[in-house]
Amino acid sequence: MLSLIGLGLNDEKDISVKGLELVKKADIVYLENYTSKLQCSKQALEKLYGKEIQLVEREVVENATAIISQAAYNNIVLLIVGDVFSATTHIALFQEAKEKGIEVQVVHNASILNAIGITGLELYKFGKTTSIPFHESETPYKVIKENFPLHTLCLLDLVPSENKFMESSEAIEKLKQSGFDINTKVVVCAQLGSDSPTILYLQAKNIKPLHKFPQCLIIPGDLHFMEKEVLESYQ
Amino acid sequence: MLSLIGLGLNDEKDISVKGLELVKKADIVYLENYTSKLQCSKQALEKLYGKEIQLVEREVVENATAIISQAAYNNIVLLIVGDVFSATTHIALFQEAKEKGIEVQVVHNASILNAIGITGLELYKFGKTTSIPFHESETPYKVIKENFPLHTLCLLDLVPSENKFMESSEAIEKLKQSGFDINTKVVVCAQLGSDSPTILYLQAKNIKPLHKFPQCLIIPGDLHFMEKEVLESYQ
Repeated sequence: MLSLIGLGLNDEKDISVKGLELVKKADIVYLENYTSKLQCSKQALEKLYGKEIQLVEREVVENATAIISQAAYNNIVLLIVGDVFSATTHIALFQEAKEKGIEVQVVHNASILNAIGITGLELYKFGKTTSIPFHESETPYKVIKENFPLHTLCLLDLVPSENKFMESSEAIEKLKQSGFDINTKVVVCAQLGSDSPTILYLQAKNIKPLHKFPQCLIIPGDLHFMEKEVLESYQ
Repeated sequence: MLSLIGLGLNDEKDISVKGLELVKKADIVYLENYTSKLQCSKQALEKLYGKEIQLVEREVVENATAIISQAAYNNIVLLIVGDVFSATTHIALFQEAKEKGIEVQVVHNASILNAIGITGLELYKFGKTTSIPFHESETPYKVIKENFPLHTLCLLDLVPSENKFMESSEAIEKLKQSGFDINTKVVVCAQLGSDSPTILYLQAKNIKPLHKFPQCLIIPGDLHFMEKEVLESYQ
């Protein structure tokens, strides 16, 4: 059996009771380490779970044959930061395992896509999600314009294995180069899902580096009065 | 202190370890009972949590004064099906509690907005979410058209207290009245997040009642080959 288990956003205690039970019964526990970042160490996970955890790189998950052959004879768990299907590589693994006749269990958890509800912005009023990459790209600003008057969630690029994360201030610099007006009021979020998330509602030009990751940036569209009231409490 | 705790989508074991710890320390535990439906009874929650749970109706959460005054002197937990900020009433409660100087803790969990990743459709390629109400409305079809080529998640109306849930076949009838082409291939989902979710990819006109709730309906936009491959496995 292959169990794909979402870890949520913050630390070892964000796993669900169901997920924890599956981890405790597992023969091998993998942790994918390339789509996001937890606020705790692998050792903290291992201590609570009572299991040794092996980090896997993108290549191992993308080239799923090894994991899938193990799952034919063992209980294999793949732990995924956030929710299970936030990345295309995980849906490909899920699909390949099913095609090979492997039983697959999915344990969902929180992802950044719903955690941003704490900003007060209505989740149902977001348009397409965009990513701001380290390299130059016109796409993010195009998505923001096309989404308007809907809100846009901008995910910021990261390379967790190199401890490399984009600051919102850097993301704004990139958007500015595509023509984004830096007088726009935007929402900066860092470490959502933790006990002390940072949420700031301010003009884009006033964003300072936070040195706290992961971050995301939200470009609000038209605001309902309740959304405005909650946002303004983050000024 | 007021703790807003997401329960996830399925049963008593979907709560996170962190959420369960807070429930065990609570003086009073409420469960909101009007935005969605769990696949387990209140008794099953009470048994695992070791606490008595009081159901609260929409009016009590909307008129938050009572809960907030209790939270000034007690550890109050409000359990919410899915994630915490899926409904506007919960963000209003969160905001009012903060304004009154009450410490508020938020424990996120899975919501339908990320659980639909299991269909193979990329979560980042969804447009605005729409709701199909029991009463007549032109809005849902308008949203679907405006979202295209993005995917559209349609939430189906429900009144859990009356055990009243909309079937996808009924939702399609309503969309058809607004001009939706029932030859379109759509995705029907029931009980996502459970051990045996139903996911069907078929022409809208071929949808039969499933007698299994809650359901949601997805109108796919343009499909990437990987999305298509996963969807076609649900035919």
